[in-house]
Amino acid sequence: MTPYDLSTLLSSTDTQSGDQRGFSRLAQSMIPSEILTIAYDVRDRIAAGADILNLTVGDFSPQEFPLLPELQDAVKKALDDGQSNYPPAPGVLELRTAVCELYSQRLALRYPVDSVLIAGGARPIIAGTYLCLINPGDQVVYGIPSWNNDHYCRMTQATPVEIPTTETTNFFIFRENIRPHLQTARLIALNTPQNPTGTVLHPKDLQEIAEMVVEENLRRATCGQRTLYILFDHIYWLLTFDGVEHASPVQLVPECAPYVIHVDGLSKAFAATGLRVGWGVGPPDLMKRMTSVLTHMGAWAPRPEQIATASILQKSAVVDRHIQHICNETGVRLRALSASIDNVRETTGQNITAIAPEGAIYLSIHLDLLGKVRPDGKTITNDEDTLAFLLDEAGVALVPFRGFGAPNAQGWFRASVGTVSRAQCEEVRDRLNRAFSRLT
Amino acid sequence: MTPYDLSTLLSSTDTQSGDQRGFSRLAQSMIPSEILTIAYDVRDRIAAGADILNLTVGDFSPQEFPLLPELQDAVKKALDDGQSNYPPAPGVLELRTAVCELYSQRLALRYPVDSVLIAGGARPIIAGTYLCLINPGDQVVYGIPSWNNDHYCRMTQATPVEIPTTETTNFFIFRENIRPHLQTARLIALNTPQNPTGTVLHPKDLQEIAEMVVEENLRRATCGQRTLYILFDHIYWLLTFDGVEHASPVQLVPECAPYVIHVDGLSKAFAATGLRVGWGVGPPDLMKRMTSVLTHMGAWAPRPEQIATASILQKSAVVDRHIQHICNETGVRLRALSASIDNVRETTGQNITAIAPEGAIYLSIHLDLLGKVRPDGKTITNDEDTLAFLLDEAGVALVPFRGFGAPNAQGWFRASVGTVSRAQCEEVRDRLNRAFSRLT
Repeated sequence: MTPYDLSTLLSSTDTQSGDQRGFSRLAQSMIPSEILTIAYDVRDRIAAGADILNLTVGDFSPQEFPLLPELQDAVKKALDDGQSNYPPAPGVLELRTAVCELYSQRLALRYPVDSVLIAGGARPIIAGTYLCLINPGDQVVYGIPSWNNDHYCRMTQATPVEIPTTETTNFFIFRENIRPHLQTARLIALNTPQNPTGTVLHPKDLQEIAEMVVEENLRRATCGQRTLYILFDHIYWLLTFDGVEHASPVQLVPECAPYVIHVDGLSKAFAATGLRVGWGVGPPDLMKRMTSVLTHMGAWAPRPEQIATASILQKSAVVDRHIQHICNETGVRLRALSASIDNVRETTGQNITAIAPEGAIYLSIHLDLLGKVRPDGKTITNDEDTLAFLLDEAGVALVPFRGFGAPNAQGWFRASVGTVSRAQCEEVRDRLNRAFSRLT
Repeated sequence: MTPYDLSTLLSSTDTQSGDQRGFSRLAQSMIPSEILTIAYDVRDRIAAGADILNLTVGDFSPQEFPLLPELQDAVKKALDDGQSNYPPAPGVLELRTAVCELYSQRLALRYPVDSVLIAGGARPIIAGTYLCLINPGDQVVYGIPSWNNDHYCRMTQATPVEIPTTETTNFFIFRENIRPHLQTARLIALNTPQNPTGTVLHPKDLQEIAEMVVEENLRRATCGQRTLYILFDHIYWLLTFDGVEHASPVQLVPECAPYVIHVDGLSKAFAATGLRVGWGVGPPDLMKRMTSVLTHMGAWAPRPEQIATASILQKSAVVDRHIQHICNETGVRLRALSASIDNVRETTGQNITAIAPEGAIYLSIHLDLLGKVRPDGKTITNDEDTLAFLLDEAGVALVPFRGFGAPNAQGWFRASVGTVSRAQCEEVRDRLNRAFSRLT
């Protein structure tokens, strides 16, 4: 039987507006990610034969960062053991317990198992936190640049309170930035080690924020005002370099435990973004409600991967070795890239700098080429021109901080090293030197 | 370092209300699933040593339905091939293409690849459809009993238009039930083969609904009114028995293609609920917006499982054999269970019947014990009493249709055969005969 070709019928609605098509306000409020738009442009150029070093993707390539063998074997074993049916809604108990142990051993925080919710990556925990705390109009405070808080605010009709940050604070916000919004905020979103900047919030500064939140919630309790929370996204917490110290606000101020949701998972520290295993750690009453919401969303982690992750986390020595390996490999690349940037500045005299890498897989690069003239006679007048110049003349692809909701951070770009080799990080030097030498 | 025990701090908020804790209206509107409440009660009884045949769970046990070997091998191969990084937001292209081929070969529908969105199971497609189509107050029409449409309405503040159904229509709704709501509805939710009833909507009846929706949308187009959609959950479509015919509304009325979202996936037809691979097939403009929403939710399918599913779907003979196997195994159990019910009626003279199984893994059982007296002297006065009697005296666990939002369907229960053997389905006969003989 010849199948019925539906293409024409399906495109018959192309002239209808989103309203006519009956799309919800939520669906129509979603705007495309600028990060993905750039990534797709780069992908198309590469597919068309362009020689481009792609530093845009916040992922790990399996060639550069293959799955850790013990983890791979553990997934296979779980399959062999018949772990193929539904996981429980909050996640398999072995994994929730293993996460409790991880936090006990490495953060010295003893959470009850009901504090842990397993999900299909870290994103569902962020989405779940917004969905469970935000009513339309509620205020969410965060610094910009920021990974996707603007999108989550749009999704939940939150009122974003965006605080522009600069390189002088490693692009973080502090107690004094938050204080003006303290009595009206519902949620403070923090991310450290930070995407896109690769910087780490200093424990002292985090402690001040945590203390302030505890104090504010004591005040709120006396007048029945709704609680203030901290969304603490530390998905990169096991990836820090050169002795940089990471802390959870709950370590620094245990009294803030009822107000803090940790966003965490396997994806980054274990270079396993495709396995879709993440978790949230927070107050049990909130995590219970989040379980209901995520169950209806279907944002569950696959069972074999849950069982495998539990078995890996239970082996402290294996975790140590894994993390050491990933830190070494990402650190080597970030330092090579940073050295490349220094070399380019010294060689060409151009205004280009990088912030010393502290964590995650990102390097913040500042590049001021405004007013320079390209070989083809075009003058560079903004970040978009800089991006195009780097692609056309150097074959280097970056993401401007504008893509992280920070139009204020002109001249700043994120470089991700998860999909490139150390040699490629070094090659950036020659590519930029060559391209910059052709600017006038 | 001794970890800091957070239990006391975390329970300090137990006396606070959800409002004080700052939980959103969404979070506070979620109500526990009655199905899960019963399932947990059964689990606790079994853990305490009770001998119970558990027919409550809409899942497959790996002992009775082990993962199909080719699928298991394909996941392992994907891991070996380094398929460990992020899948693209709409799913890997191989799998989207394989789903197009599946629909082309088995439904004679040629969809473009942009019509296919891969997700972490079927639930995200249901949630995504609601989120992308429903504004607060929009009407969703569905028959009851129904799997979770009440929860999705609550989640999106939809106005549910619930149409009570009876066994005389195999618990389905028809064109004439929908017509009074036709001009005001935003979405009609259909599920066939149906959970919880195990019945299949007749193609002729489905065709009438599809024709009416096409006609209504022609009318709406002339006055700029928002489009009416059909959420067509046919996750069990490959599991039908004894020549019962399943059809998609788009097969019957191709013109409804722009208004139909198919909910589908690996979980049921391949007895692989734990792998978290599902898909939606619908109009590309809607699926694109759903991709954005589900990306922020993080409701993605793991990459190794996506690659593996693609490789299996590409092998038509393997799919045929798999489906035949699962249908045989579920059919044998459903028929054995149905025969047990007939035997009990004939043996005990009690008012117990079952609807002939047509599809899915469920049997609808009607049981009227109202007014009967248990050995312990208690009189059975409602479904809850019947349920307790079956658990206490027969060691048989079922879910009343009330758990599927249908308090109207008193005396009706769902039995699921995915976690029991054929012998256990036969054992139900002896258990019920023995228990019923003790009723007066």
